[in-house]
Amino acid sequence: MRLRAEVISTGDEVLTGAVVDTNAAYLAEQLTEAGVGVVRHTVVGDRQDTLSELFRSAGKGADIVVVTGGLGPTQDDLTASAAAEAAGVPLVLDAAAMAGIERYFRSRNRHMSETNRKQAMFPEGARVIENPVGTAPGFTMTIGKAVFFFMPGVPHEMRRMMADQVLPSVRKLQGGEGGQNLTRIISTFGFGESDAAQRLAEFVGRFPDLRLGFQVKYPGILIKIYGGDGAPEAVSRRIEAGVAWICTKLGQRVVSVDGSPLERVVGELLKKRGETLAVAESCTGGLISHLLTNVPGSSDYFLFSGVTYANTAKTGILGVSPETIAAYGAVHEETVKEMADGARKAACATYGLATSGIAGPEGGTAEKPVGTVCIGVATPAGIFAERRLFTFGGRLMKKQMFAAAALDLLRGYLQG
Amino acid sequence: MRLRAEVISTGDEVLTGAVVDTNAAYLAEQLTEAGVGVVRHTVVGDRQDTLSELFRSAGKGADIVVVTGGLGPTQDDLTASAAAEAAGVPLVLDAAAMAGIERYFRSRNRHMSETNRKQAMFPEGARVIENPVGTAPGFTMTIGKAVFFFMPGVPHEMRRMMADQVLPSVRKLQGGEGGQNLTRIISTFGFGESDAAQRLAEFVGRFPDLRLGFQVKYPGILIKIYGGDGAPEAVSRRIEAGVAWICTKLGQRVVSVDGSPLERVVGELLKKRGETLAVAESCTGGLISHLLTNVPGSSDYFLFSGVTYANTAKTGILGVSPETIAAYGAVHEETVKEMADGARKAACATYGLATSGIAGPEGGTAEKPVGTVCIGVATPAGIFAERRLFTFGGRLMKKQMFAAAALDLLRGYLQG
Repeated sequence: MRLRAEVISTGDEVLTGAVVDTNAAYLAEQLTEAGVGVVRHTVVGDRQDTLSELFRSAGKGADIVVVTGGLGPTQDDLTASAAAEAAGVPLVLDAAAMAGIERYFRSRNRHMSETNRKQAMFPEGARVIENPVGTAPGFTMTIGKAVFFFMPGVPHEMRRMMADQVLPSVRKLQGGEGGQNLTRIISTFGFGESDAAQRLAEFVGRFPDLRLGFQVKYPGILIKIYGGDGAPEAVSRRIEAGVAWICTKLGQRVVSVDGSPLERVVGELLKKRGETLAVAESCTGGLISHLLTNVPGSSDYFLFSGVTYANTAKTGILGVSPETIAAYGAVHEETVKEMADGARKAACATYGLATSGIAGPEGGTAEKPVGTVCIGVATPAGIFAERRLFTFGGRLMKKQMFAAAALDLLRGYLQG
Repeated sequence: MRLRAEVISTGDEVLTGAVVDTNAAYLAEQLTEAGVGVVRHTVVGDRQDTLSELFRSAGKGADIVVVTGGLGPTQDDLTASAAAEAAGVPLVLDAAAMAGIERYFRSRNRHMSETNRKQAMFPEGARVIENPVGTAPGFTMTIGKAVFFFMPGVPHEMRRMMADQVLPSVRKLQGGEGGQNLTRIISTFGFGESDAAQRLAEFVGRFPDLRLGFQVKYPGILIKIYGGDGAPEAVSRRIEAGVAWICTKLGQRVVSVDGSPLERVVGELLKKRGETLAVAESCTGGLISHLLTNVPGSSDYFLFSGVTYANTAKTGILGVSPETIAAYGAVHEETVKEMADGARKAACATYGLATSGIAGPEGGTAEKPVGTVCIGVATPAGIFAERRLFTFGGRLMKKQMFAAAALDLLRGYLQG
């Protein structure tokens, strides 16, 4: 039988919206991929009665409950005492956990505050989950019929503990019944969610054994194919057939069939060809470079970006002709062509990619409204440019759309 | 009496963790700031029985329930029919909503698909909430004793509808009793959450009427002061006293007392002084520029960033001496000093700010491990550099910490 899981996030900072709950999404994704059925996420605040009542009720309905937050050193951190209350056991000091916390502070030459001692108190009978990258250990115990895993809310600590310690325990709980859910993620760019759903409306009829999910990962859309029941090889073949069908339907809008984002796909294309890239950014303000350099190993192909916000930087550093800017303005196909060419030459790169546009909220005109972007591509075979208009979202969303549109134009060129 | 609210997010893509639930945080923050007490967030999947059961139970416990998702055109979108089921009413077509959807598609010259008609079906008695920026209208109705507001899950559509239509309705429901919760957000950089809590441990004793919250907004920490009961002027004076006390305790670690992030504070300092900035980025890969240019109006002071990933770009474009790189390496105080000076001179800026480091996962050595960053600052009065080591997090978290450390070093200099 498939195990049912609940995910609980605690803390007033999450409840009041001061912090976005990225932990729940991460945990749900990990559990789903491990073949566990996530049925609910809940967020509640730092109140011991609310917490212990929620733990008791989750312990009745689910097989596995994963809880984050409330293990810190402050008075707000009530998870351990609420778990003890829900299970009807006292809190006790764990000597090994105490030693681990002391070791953590010593190894970093940091002062251990008195309040950190609280983090070594656990419900009686709980097993400690070590935290190799932070001060708050977690713990696991049974409440009702469910096995609970408690972890700190600090994302990088929680992720490490989930991967190294909680997921192996979850797999043991699954016994022979668990296993990976087969899924594939197709990354796309260039249309909205309902347009994507409409284009793929026939999928359900053609592949009734598979399930399709759409996810806005702005500015693109991820399409997720979930495999059904059956022998892994057969499910895998069906998924491949589904992927191929979707690629035929969507054509150039498919960025990758493994979920890779645009910047990684562009990087892999350049790397495979032994070619290099230089960028000139005005309206994207460094975002194209930031995205490209988030990919490990990007120094193999990414040489330089000139973020030329000032026109004097466009002329002085990229060699754009002041006459071009005077004649056409900074936001124009002719200007971005010279920017792309200038970046390419300045860095001796195979390609140059340039953006100039109006991210807003100010600076728009009737002829060039906020949301206008010109994108230039300089190649060994010549230079070309395009103009696009994106009307929705604020300044950051426009920068994200501009950057993706530029990377996508280069991808289209590289893929011929 | 203070109204109690629940926030519900629906959709398999949220439940399985494919999408991070940023909507719940946004809604909770808006409701909290409006003086409503948020008591719970819940995420459930696209199943009509689960949804209608949850709506019924929320309708018993809360005064206000805000629901996002499930209003789209696809078969997965079950929110309207689940709400109808929970309230025991049929679904009916709303002619005005239908006309609005048709208008939306016509104005964008887009094809309206058959499935979009489904988005004009609402529970009988519901009042439609218009969606001026998308295809899915929302609706409001009573279920049990709670007023429900249903909105689409697309963040920028939901935010617009929340601000323009839902919040004004919430304020009406509050009658004379509502009002703003008085809060202040102090932005800090340079320590961890438990260190911050320890330094401010005496706050509770000194200001028993105020409440303090800590929020990791990586790579900084936000400290939130919540005002207590009482006349607004008196509460406001107490909060100011609390802010002043915290500033004394934390000194230079306080970035702003209005929640402004580093890039905005640096920008405001430059603007006030009529000065300009040029940046040279190696390990931060464009992130410093991206952050600076996220601030509207940044073109007043931000002139140029040279993202010089390749050493040839450091020498060719920034004028770093090849001998310096040969003698010290790309990651060194001497190199970032020349980078900062080169960027400053190339763009004729008042200041130059430069980073070079090792973001990983590869490229570390015993002498310069992954996490090492050198930061250079060039000023009219001279050039200086610092070296730091940040050991935790992956490539992106290291880039974020490096960029913040660089901006913070410049901030410290500008604030003298």
